[in-house]
Amino acid sequence: MTRIITVAAAQLGPIQRNEGRDVVVARMVRLVEKAHRHGANVVVFPELALTTFFPRWYVENLDDADDWYEEALPSPATQPLFDAIRRYGMTCYLGYAELAYEPDETGIMRKRRFNTSVIIAPSGEIVLKYRKVHLPGDKEFSKIRNVQHLEKRYFEVGNLGFPVVAAPVGEVERVNMGMLICNDRRWPEAWRELGMQQVELVMLGYNTPAVNQENRGFEAHHLRNFHSQLSIQAGCYQNATFGVGVAKAGTEDGFTLMGHSVIVNPQGEVMAMATSWDDEVIVADCNLAMCELGRTTIFNFAKHRRLEAYTRITSQTGSSAPELWQPNQAVTGAI
Amino acid sequence: MTRIITVAAAQLGPIQRNEGRDVVVARMVRLVEKAHRHGANVVVFPELALTTFFPRWYVENLDDADDWYEEALPSPATQPLFDAIRRYGMTCYLGYAELAYEPDETGIMRKRRFNTSVIIAPSGEIVLKYRKVHLPGDKEFSKIRNVQHLEKRYFEVGNLGFPVVAAPVGEVERVNMGMLICNDRRWPEAWRELGMQQVELVMLGYNTPAVNQENRGFEAHHLRNFHSQLSIQAGCYQNATFGVGVAKAGTEDGFTLMGHSVIVNPQGEVMAMATSWDDEVIVADCNLAMCELGRTTIFNFAKHRRLEAYTRITSQTGSSAPELWQPNQAVTGAI
Repeated sequence: MTRIITVAAAQLGPIQRNEGRDVVVARMVRLVEKAHRHGANVVVFPELALTTFFPRWYVENLDDADDWYEEALPSPATQPLFDAIRRYGMTCYLGYAELAYEPDETGIMRKRRFNTSVIIAPSGEIVLKYRKVHLPGDKEFSKIRNVQHLEKRYFEVGNLGFPVVAAPVGEVERVNMGMLICNDRRWPEAWRELGMQQVELVMLGYNTPAVNQENRGFEAHHLRNFHSQLSIQAGCYQNATFGVGVAKAGTEDGFTLMGHSVIVNPQGEVMAMATSWDDEVIVADCNLAMCELGRTTIFNFAKHRRLEAYTRITSQTGSSAPELWQPNQAVTGAI
Repeated sequence: MTRIITVAAAQLGPIQRNEGRDVVVARMVRLVEKAHRHGANVVVFPELALTTFFPRWYVENLDDADDWYEEALPSPATQPLFDAIRRYGMTCYLGYAELAYEPDETGIMRKRRFNTSVIIAPSGEIVLKYRKVHLPGDKEFSKIRNVQHLEKRYFEVGNLGFPVVAAPVGEVERVNMGMLICNDRRWPEAWRELGMQQVELVMLGYNTPAVNQENRGFEAHHLRNFHSQLSIQAGCYQNATFGVGVAKAGTEDGFTLMGHSVIVNPQGEVMAMATSWDDEVIVADCNLAMCELGRTTIFNFAKHRRLEAYTRITSQTGSSAPELWQPNQAVTGAI
């Protein structure tokens, strides 16, 4: 039986600060319709797809920012999106700011905030939830930045790990699906956690500024997109999976986010790429049988991975400098 | 003080099965001279640089293959190379097959074989030794391959971890250097082990067949080089390090190895690339200060890595399939 699914990346153009969810959701419904016309079984939206990228705005008291968050899915505002994916039998990845009332690590029930994504079945059921692990930026106002990036202020670090689920997509009975969010894609640890679960389709959304905002040298502007695609392509190749990276793009609240959403195959090849900075759908037929080659040969993990040599990856968080070699010392690394 | 070193990749053309080490070493000395004329402080040679890529040849009894290995460095055959790097004050990466007499894991002294590389100081002293961890291919003769790839037969898995050393190079007092060998470059775990030690220059040699030899579909020939560069570029970017990947290239014993040796900067950009399939030197001025940007911002490991979410990387070797989702079940990944 063939295992081909048609995947759509639904890139969003900018969402201005005062744009209502009703307008945004209407735009998303149009993109679902367009993805359906292109035969898609899966539609992937960006990170924080329902609002502007609000972590660029400093707030003193987070309780004043609750409007940016969702307390439930679906909600009256997002119901039309759920209706659309049900209508077209589509599986959907949606990124949003999550406001949850749940116990913290000490067992105390409280209001908690996460940068979250979900996989939604055509029925509207939530199949899988992920909360962003690699939050970039700062917790406090930064004086050296041109633009603030306050994800560490607005969100707690995700506490759900990197889950993968097998679920039906279109006619295919079982597709192994996992999620990343934005900055996660630069971290090979995140991809590997998914690869260890035989992921076949990694869905990830992002809001990435088109220029480095730290006023520091050595990074040409065009490398911003190169780094994004490099990380996605390497993650897909090294874990033998398809990947869909979806941008919120264009000039939002006066600041430019990069576009160039991509669909990548397990060989690391770009199958489709968005070329506007606006609402845009790209699609690709993904033959999941392609995941087998890498998984059973060069990246047959059981055959080739060597845990005894991976000593620092999970035993230390930060890096440490090596010893300085001295002439006439014993050879470092020799027995 | 500037921290600029000039790095040379000394690509080797093919070495035929019956070519003597004297001829090979003479070619390497020419490349050292050429690297010196280009102002190099460091010269990087390929994996198994002193012989043909012999793991393509099956032998029943490994003791019959001892001629492929080195028992000591320098040896009479390799002394001219050591003389050349001393003459020009150059630091050198050399890959070779190592025959060692040392205790195994059970404490018994025996003959052991490793796919090894060393960093040699201008004085001729061995600064650091590395033994290849990710051995590709098979231990036994494979009937499904066009060409054998018997590294798992010829070598034991490296037992020195992924060491990094700080040593002087040229006028720079302290350069953090690490090594990989061939297939290691495809494994983000290997790069990360080096990155955790603040590596600034990753040296790696390879012998990579120009076509996939497993008679299986889905991999266009041109992707072989793409995968190599993708892995090196991603490894450099994600660990904020320079990288030098050096090929043995061309048609060796009738089988083609890919070339396209590269020098890559911490932004993942290719600074220089070989374009012949023969002996060739490429050089690049590497400003080690470039490693700082990534290391202190987006890849500030201490600030951003989340060990508690890396649960599978070092707890399981092989991958395992995810659970199949059932409608109306609790949300996977939810609390």
